[in-house]
Amino acid sequence: MGSFKGHALPGSFFLITGLWWAAKQTFLYATRRNKSAGAGRLASRATQRRIEIIEGAVILSFSIIGMLAEQLLAGGPKFQLYDSSTQHWEQLMNWQHTTMYLFFAIAGAISLTVHSTDIAPLALDRMLLGLAFFNEGFLFLYHLHGRDMLDVHVHTLLLYAIFGQAFICLLEVFHRGNILLELLRANLTILQGSWFWQIGFVLYPPSQVKWDQTDHDNSVFVTLCYCWHLAFALLTVAVVYWSVLCAVRSRLRRIPPMEMGLLKPRKKEVESEDEIL
Amino acid sequence: MGSFKGHALPGSFFLITGLWWAAKQTFLYATRRNKSAGAGRLASRATQRRIEIIEGAVILSFSIIGMLAEQLLAGGPKFQLYDSSTQHWEQLMNWQHTTMYLFFAIAGAISLTVHSTDIAPLALDRMLLGLAFFNEGFLFLYHLHGRDMLDVHVHTLLLYAIFGQAFICLLEVFHRGNILLELLRANLTILQGSWFWQIGFVLYPPSQVKWDQTDHDNSVFVTLCYCWHLAFALLTVAVVYWSVLCAVRSRLRRIPPMEMGLLKPRKKEVESEDEIL
Amino acid sequence: MGSFKGHALPGSFFLITGLWWAAKQTFLYATRRNKSAGAGRLASRATQRRIEIIEGAVILSFSIIGMLAEQLLAGGPKFQLYDSSTQHWEQLMNWQHTTMYLFFAIAGAISLTVHSTDIAPLALDRMLLGLAFFNEGFLFLYHLHGRDMLDVHVHTLLLYAIFGQAFICLLEVFHRGNILLELLRANLTILQGSWFWQIGFVLYPPSQVKWDQTDHDNSVFVTLCYCWHLAFALLTVAVVYWSVLCAVRSRLRRIPPMEMGLLKPRKKEVESEDEIL
Amino acid sequence: MGSFKGHALPGSFFLITGLWWAAKQTFLYATRRNKSAGAGRLASRATQRRIEIIEGAVILSFSIIGMLAEQLLAGGPKFQLYDSSTQHWEQLMNWQHTTMYLFFAIAGAISLTVHSTDIAPLALDRMLLGLAFFNEGFLFLYHLHGRDMLDVHVHTLLLYAIFGQAFICLLEVFHRGNILLELLRANLTILQGSWFWQIGFVLYPPSQVKWDQTDHDNSVFVTLCYCWHLAFALLTVAVVYWSVLCAVRSRLRRIPPMEMGLLKPRKKEVESEDEIL
Repeated sequence: MGSFKGHALPGSFFLITGLWWAAKQTFLYATRRNKSAGAGRLASRATQRRIEIIEGAVILSFSIIGMLAEQLLAGGPKFQLYDSSTQHWEQLMNWQHTTMYLFFAIAGAISLTVHSTDIAPLALDRMLLGLAFFNEGFLFLYHLHGRDMLDVHVHTLLLYAIFGQAFICLLEVFHRGNILLELLRANLTILQGSWFWQIGFVLYPPSQVKWDQTDHDNSVFVTLCYCWHLAFALLTVAVVYWSVLCAVRSRLRRIPPMEMGLLKPRKKEVESEDEIL
Repeated sequence: MGSFKGHALPGSFFLITGLWWAAKQTFLYATRRNKSAGAGRLASRATQRRIEIIEGAVILSFSIIGMLAEQLLAGGPKFQLYDSSTQHWEQLMNWQHTTMYLFFAIAGAISLTVHSTDIAPLALDRMLLGLAFFNEGFLFLYHLHGRDMLDVHVHTLLLYAIFGQAFICLLEVFHRGNILLELLRANLTILQGSWFWQIGFVLYPPSQVKWDQTDHDNSVFVTLCYCWHLAFALLTVAVVYWSVLCAVRSRLRRIPPMEMGLLKPRKKEVESEDEIL
Repeated sequence: MGSFKGHALPGSFFLITGLWWAAKQTFLYATRRNKSAGAGRLASRATQRRIEIIEGAVILSFSIIGMLAEQLLAGGPKFQLYDSSTQHWEQLMNWQHTTMYLFFAIAGAISLTVHSTDIAPLALDRMLLGLAFFNEGFLFLYHLHGRDMLDVHVHTLLLYAIFGQAFICLLEVFHRGNILLELLRANLTILQGSWFWQIGFVLYPPSQVKWDQTDHDNSVFVTLCYCWHLAFALLTVAVVYWSVLCAVRSRLRRIPPMEMGLLKPRKKEVESEDEIL
Repeated sequence: MGSFKGHALPGSFFLITGLWWAAKQTFLYATRRNKSAGAGRLASRATQRRIEIIEGAVILSFSIIGMLAEQLLAGGPKFQLYDSSTQHWEQLMNWQHTTMYLFFAIAGAISLTVHSTDIAPLALDRMLLGLAFFNEGFLFLYHLHGRDMLDVHVHTLLLYAIFGQAFICLLEVFHRGNILLELLRANLTILQGSWFWQIGFVLYPPSQVKWDQTDHDNSVFVTLCYCWHLAFALLTVAVVYWSVLCAVRSRLRRIPPMEMGLLKPRKKEVESEDEIL
């Protein structure tokens, strides 16, 4: 994975996931807030469950694809861990990435189970998502031995986003349905995604000019750059939030709310899973 | 910004902000507590909103002024980031300060939006204020490479106040309207402001005598001095709290509470934004 | 305790404890959730108390046995702390292990007292369990001076599980009866147990081939291995959770719930201790 | 203060304070729990206020005495901070201890104000107590430069107790009246007190034999010793808790509860300050 593509790929995944989370959570928040105006019909509890199940399935399948790619593609260890002839471990970096994917696969599988059955409390999905992020950060933390100064620095900055996500998932276990935490998580996921791209550009620049890995000024610039990525992620989440909110409202304005209120005055179903907690 | 003025300026800003926050939060707290005595008239919900909107606008405009000053004043990079001729980054320190101001500008703009519309939850203003403080501390943290021992030490002490503010803003997201947290935030803001002045005096003393940057005794004295600044900030907040409380009470005593109770017994408006949460 | 057996023994204890906690907490959770279906009869409040008392007694007696073994078995200091003739402390490592056991003995004794009398709040048992884990981690932290790199690394990894358990016990003081925290605690206990076994295999391998204590690749592999132990612990807890839940449900299906509802409609006893809080 | 007495004195203060807190909090807890049995008469709200006011006054006066002693006794700087002739700071260590006392004086004064007037929320006393402990730990942290290994180690261990107390005070701001937190605070205060005595014995042993400040075995033993102090503090708090609880119960048994219930069935006063929150 020591290549430009190897960083752009997970970066794109996280970018898409972050955008999706921002849109999904805003949508659910808007329907919760406008329930009296008939927004419940936009996202009934069954629809929500289906969304969560699909999300879990997508995360699970992409993680499995990632694990297989890391193992089987050119240069992968092909599920062999130890080479007895040379007495060396085989491709430990690929095994690390496989393990990162493994925990996201577990989180996806559990999310799938939690939302398709009623066997476990809902908050379990966030706890395992948090564990997956923590595990990712944990492996990155012990991943940096003996690299160049700038290389270590850009990966250290990445850890802020990753451990931030893990911490927010833990908070969500206790404060489920808090839109601020949900948007902050989406925000940090976008930050992680765009920063993966930035790492690719810094360590494996497409142009001829290489970055001086030991120049302190480069390290200062990279820190600054990280803050700008964060500002960009904030802007992105704000735009997504605003668009989804407007879309839900304009959709609601087109539905005559009175009629519904008259026809089904007693139908009182729980619209949102989060409110059950 | 490596000058006495460059530290006195943000110091003054933070001092004024801290004093303003102490006064504002005490005033809102006093009206909440004395609502039955008619204090609601002193600060109706509309007035509160207006105060918050003005505060957001002031923070936003001052941050923009700060950004422009950092870029355009003598020695600024004038929005040029990279000098291709010398292959060096341009004035990274000014860019760092610009970025710090940028996040306060974002926090101001969001606060303005949150309080002038109902598009987002109120607690968003505190979350972005916390993010702005965190970002300030984050940049200061990676700001200290290769400086003298005393210089590093005075800036490290500053970080306690800055990260303390960020942490308290995070707590306020969940415990909004807790007067103790609000006063502690004002307190740390005053501490940060007065410490900026102290840094100016230590690193760029107006008198001829320079401080020995490597003497350990100076470092011990500076640590002590930081505690005295904290005690001074506590005293200032206590005086402001006491004065505002007395002013509200004396004002209320002059309003005949009975009359109001008789004339408008049914008028029940939500006086404080924070209670809606 | 510097031997394979010395690590396998506590490892087995923690493994068994973790499995027991996963089963116990799931069982209590299942009875709480299915109370309306008559699950209260499976675990009345008296039964729960008895389980907790037995648990406390078992922890207390095993800890005392551990303390005596550390002191009296071959090579132990036999309660002598200082050898005046050589002017050296006697067997400090045995004394460290004795102290670790001591705090678990205290936690067991307090749990016994809390559940057999009503003299103190229930949450005290978790607080002292957390203190016992914290103390274990604290002693391990100051235990690593001057060892080989790999030796330090495997014990550092152990600290994540131990301090994680302490932190979760602290959270449980405030969020008692949260099944997610309880399962996470069981999970980390199993992780700690299986990792003790792994440490035994790494530092005192039964085969002839010794691990190279200074090879960085070994250290990377061991970090990876820790993540796999965590995944294995997650799987184990999930299997236990699933089995216990199915057992409770199948048991409930065999009890005619109607009859009970008809015969004792007014008997309303508090089924679970945790609900009292 | 670099003497045996200089450590025994604050040690004794903290020991007494810890014992007092354990007794006071248990007493208030017992009256809260047995209110229906007439325990309210043992500690009416007025009595509680009086106790808190006396406590605040005692802390305030002892802190002022401590400040004066540090300044005026033999070797003190007599309020002179800078010696212009030698261009050196005067007795910075005494000034550090004066500053530690200053913050406890502030906490005492605020506690006095909070409980004798209704000008501020009750939780303010805990917040400033936490700040005083934090300040103490903060100054100790920057206090250790250039000392011997064992000297640094015993003071580092002290920091665990001090920052633990600060953290618990912060938790108490949000969970006021939680007996477990209150007892843990008393526990850590006793630990801090007895550890001050231990530091005195280690650094300034009364006997002829000095401790070898650089022997690693001594450092290991001291860590162990710290755990035993903690166990001893736990035991002390347990004994105090048990005695006070028994005393309250035996006292209540001697009061005929029926009579009171019959004579004053409507008198409903708020017994405990903490319940108002």
